[in-house]
Amino acid sequence: MKTILGQSVALQPALLKQALTHRSAGKKNNERLEFLGDSILSLVVSEWLYRNFPTLSEGQLSRLRASLVKGETLAEVARRYQLGDSLVLGSGELKSGGFDRSSVLADAVEALFGAVLIEQGHEAARQFILAVLKPWLDKIDPETNLKDPKSRLQEMLQKRALPLPEYRTLSESGQDHNKHFVVECAVPPLGLKVISEGASRKRAEQDAAGKMLQRLPSVLSS
Amino acid sequence: MKTILGQSVALQPALLKQALTHRSAGKKNNERLEFLGDSILSLVVSEWLYRNFPTLSEGQLSRLRASLVKGETLAEVARRYQLGDSLVLGSGELKSGGFDRSSVLADAVEALFGAVLIEQGHEAARQFILAVLKPWLDKIDPETNLKDPKSRLQEMLQKRALPLPEYRTLSESGQDHNKHFVVECAVPPLGLKVISEGASRKRAEQDAAGKMLQRLPSVLSS
Repeated sequence: MKTILGQSVALQPALLKQALTHRSAGKKNNERLEFLGDSILSLVVSEWLYRNFPTLSEGQLSRLRASLVKGETLAEVARRYQLGDSLVLGSGELKSGGFDRSSVLADAVEALFGAVLIEQGHEAARQFILAVLKPWLDKIDPETNLKDPKSRLQEMLQKRALPLPEYRTLSESGQDHNKHFVVECAVPPLGLKVISEGASRKRAEQDAAGKMLQRLPSVLSS
Repeated sequence: MKTILGQSVALQPALLKQALTHRSAGKKNNERLEFLGDSILSLVVSEWLYRNFPTLSEGQLSRLRASLVKGETLAEVARRYQLGDSLVLGSGELKSGGFDRSSVLADAVEALFGAVLIEQGHEAARQFILAVLKPWLDKIDPETNLKDPKSRLQEMLQKRALPLPEYRTLSESGQDHNKHFVVECAVPPLGLKVISEGASRKRAEQDAAGKMLQRLPSVLSS
């Protein structure tokens, strides 16, 4: 048994090593395991939310899930357990600080979830993921997480004395009953820009704000 | 035991009814179950692909998965088993032909997957989903599915004597080492338009073509 992300888990050493190996370090890396881990993570969180919040709508469940499975949350998980120290990186990634890059850390966490699934099966993976995420699951506050994304984005930026996000309609197409909007949301001081589409300008903007919330550096969104 | 999508499954009548109830028919509808079903479907297909195609990259696995879990495939599943006859729809949806609308059918299939998960657990849901999808899993041909999306889209349109898709760059931002492109892909004769973003024009266009392939009516993509 090894202690992985604070939990005792039995994993073959070769599979554990693969889960911790970034693609920069060679062909036998964690990308395929991450593909799997992303899926089992999403399912376990979905099922947990479904059972724990019986009155929330599908849209509300989706928003809560997005706040939990986003890269920044997984990077926090990795940092709490010093996962960076165990990563296997190529020399370029190593020199450029890959061991503390959020995307690299988040991918490794997902790959570990995938490895447990492949070797120990669904139930073990479910228990492992719920145990690892417990501190974040305990903190879930539907009140905050369920405010609409545009309001949350605005509040978050105001709290940091940053200017309001800028929304711009890039295209509008389709007939009256079948409109299609493409909008952009930008936060120029952070150099961030995202786009979204939707059947109304309002929906596309809300979706864009949601994407922007996912992209904000974690220091801003805490 | 009832026969659901061609399989014998034991489901509480109330849960089965909820899985077949469209949101147009009232508050106790299948939206929350669909949220769950979407996740378990994605996981089961991911794991199946991971185990059956050990040499494919994560990107290739993602493409194969997208071809299986897309709405049009699920609507085909529903039609093969005449699921439309069992749907509970509001009067508006009923009059406008909702029982044969692909999105309504696909949602109900996902909700059934979610219902089996909630009532029978992971392993039963996995077996149910693999049994239901077997005809589609058997047909998977990595050769065809793994060609890049732009080539596939072009071939598909040419086969139907339709004009080539039109790609247009909507915006280009960021510094040299951190570019961000937004592109649009349109197929005017079908009235379809999608957008995508990416770190290069090429990647954004490939991604847009992939999205367009998902949106094409199933009669075109078969």
